[in-house]
Amino acid sequence: MNDRIARLVERIDDPLLVTNPTNVVYLVGFESSNAALLVERDRVRLFTDFRYIEAARAIDGVDVVQTRRDVIGEIADTLSGRIAFEAATLTYALYEVLRDGGIETVPTKGVVEGLRAVKDEQELDTIRRACAITDSVFERLTEVPFVGRTERDVSWDLTQLFHEEGGQGLAFESIVGAGPTGARPHARAGDRRIEAGELVVIDAGTTIDGYASDYTRTFATGPLGDEAKEAYETVLLAQQAALDGIRAGITGVDADLLARRVIDESPFAGTLGHGLGHGLGLDIHEAPRLSTESNDTLVPGNVVTVEPGIYLEGRFGIRIEDDVVVTEDGVENFTGFRKDLIEVG
Amino acid sequence: MNDRIARLVERIDDPLLVTNPTNVVYLVGFESSNAALLVERDRVRLFTDFRYIEAARAIDGVDVVQTRRDVIGEIADTLSGRIAFEAATLTYALYEVLRDGGIETVPTKGVVEGLRAVKDEQELDTIRRACAITDSVFERLTEVPFVGRTERDVSWDLTQLFHEEGGQGLAFESIVGAGPTGARPHARAGDRRIEAGELVVIDAGTTIDGYASDYTRTFATGPLGDEAKEAYETVLLAQQAALDGIRAGITGVDADLLARRVIDESPFAGTLGHGLGHGLGLDIHEAPRLSTESNDTLVPGNVVTVEPGIYLEGRFGIRIEDDVVVTEDGVENFTGFRKDLIEVG
Repeated sequence: MNDRIARLVERIDDPLLVTNPTNVVYLVGFESSNAALLVERDRVRLFTDFRYIEAARAIDGVDVVQTRRDVIGEIADTLSGRIAFEAATLTYALYEVLRDGGIETVPTKGVVEGLRAVKDEQELDTIRRACAITDSVFERLTEVPFVGRTERDVSWDLTQLFHEEGGQGLAFESIVGAGPTGARPHARAGDRRIEAGELVVIDAGTTIDGYASDYTRTFATGPLGDEAKEAYETVLLAQQAALDGIRAGITGVDADLLARRVIDESPFAGTLGHGLGHGLGLDIHEAPRLSTESNDTLVPGNVVTVEPGIYLEGRFGIRIEDDVVVTEDGVENFTGFRKDLIEVG
Repeated sequence: MNDRIARLVERIDDPLLVTNPTNVVYLVGFESSNAALLVERDRVRLFTDFRYIEAARAIDGVDVVQTRRDVIGEIADTLSGRIAFEAATLTYALYEVLRDGGIETVPTKGVVEGLRAVKDEQELDTIRRACAITDSVFERLTEVPFVGRTERDVSWDLTQLFHEEGGQGLAFESIVGAGPTGARPHARAGDRRIEAGELVVIDAGTTIDGYASDYTRTFATGPLGDEAKEAYETVLLAQQAALDGIRAGITGVDADLLARRVIDESPFAGTLGHGLGHGLGLDIHEAPRLSTESNDTLVPGNVVTVEPGIYLEGRFGIRIEDDVVVTEDGVENFTGFRKDLIEVG
């Protein structure tokens, strides 16, 4: 029984059926689109189908059970009694399969996610490596001018640079939002040609051994007007206020407010439409959350993004995002890349 | 009201809450990680948060409702009455939110997926384009020798080639499985160096306007032994039997059996551990399924993969996969790339 399973067992009353694929990776290092783990005090069973069975047999400390493709159906047919399940991941239809199979189902939420939210030293080192690669990529990104090229072209530069710098793939589809596209926080890189004198929001990250980095910087393609410069300075101040104030013990709501207050007391009040940040690890959005809707309180070992922004619909957007680990008395910032306003050609 | 919504409305009794993001894309062309669509006879409401709101306002024929980040929570707070939901996608936890908000929930399954399974001419053309690009990529892939390079290196070649040939990204992480890795149907490309005289399974595809291609070919890095050659011929015969026999009206179970029988009557009986294929479209695995566990019957306009394989644990794997559309009297095969055994350096 590995250390993570041992800590999990301390937190559960009933056998826990783990179906969130990321949780399965976290607990036993097994990667599959179709697997379930049944964790009990005295044993762990790993259920998966033929396609993954050979890889499953290489996992230590689990009893492997080969199932048909319908893993949950087979579990429902063969097991009985009280079984807790992950309600935030299991679909209603699969819950019905368990219930109709006679299992006494107990919904649970956030049990494994709670463990994952506190990173150990090895996990922190892995995220540091992902961030170091991302620093290098952002350093090199501005070597080729943006003006006249499409957002999609610049996105491809990111893909190539992450590969050259040793990333194991993109953590998510890179966002390259120029001018008005940047005002949509989650816009895809499109066929719009980048013009001179625009702001370009670039949100990208890579994966190392499953762990993600997630940076945003906003570049200028030539001199900006006063309003855009002031907005940039405001986002920078808001981010610095958050980085200065976040520490163990602060709530996700209060952390969010550190930055939100700066923006809401500026001429750009009300333009930070999303939360300040989110946990980062095996998933690019995990616990804890820093937002007006958060129920979390930060503890040492939480890795979170700090990413305030200002969005002016139809005109431009600005976002600056670092990845940090929460400590007793502050944060350690994994992000080395500069954040003053950089002009690119 | 567009044509797809009109067809959907004919199939529902209650207002349908569509939460599967791919179904939202299909119905109204809106792409978001956090949205829901409420489809009724006389109107369609699109719920999403700030990050996507500007894009939502550009969608024709829907009433846009901006919500907090917790979209389902806000729907539960503000709506009432009978609402059908997508049980195969909505998590149990979100079902609880709807139920506890006083909504009379009605689980449904496969309603939009049933529409998506039958492609129209425009969708078929898009998939044809993705397949034409994939043909070109496989043609060029063997220009650089494999031997001495890692699986991961060859996977990067695929990424670059799909970009150069006009793909809009990978449809999924490419599989490059050399020698014993190939015996694991879903192995990731790893750091193993490809040796001479091995079989290399390559499973890759690209996306065009959201629609995927999904090909597999198995290459030889030099002369093979008799057993491997016989296994390759057997997979090829199995696939041809399926391509010859699939047509509208056949069940997914019988389609699977066309290929499975060939393998099970050979010296490699029992080594096709997965189903013959799956539907292909906006998702890389969608309805209908061709497998021993399928409940589907094929109809004209279904696009499916046909991908039998032989897997000998610890030794090698072989898979050959084409993408086809089902017609009244057979299939149209979108895959042009050759499938005789190719030797690469």
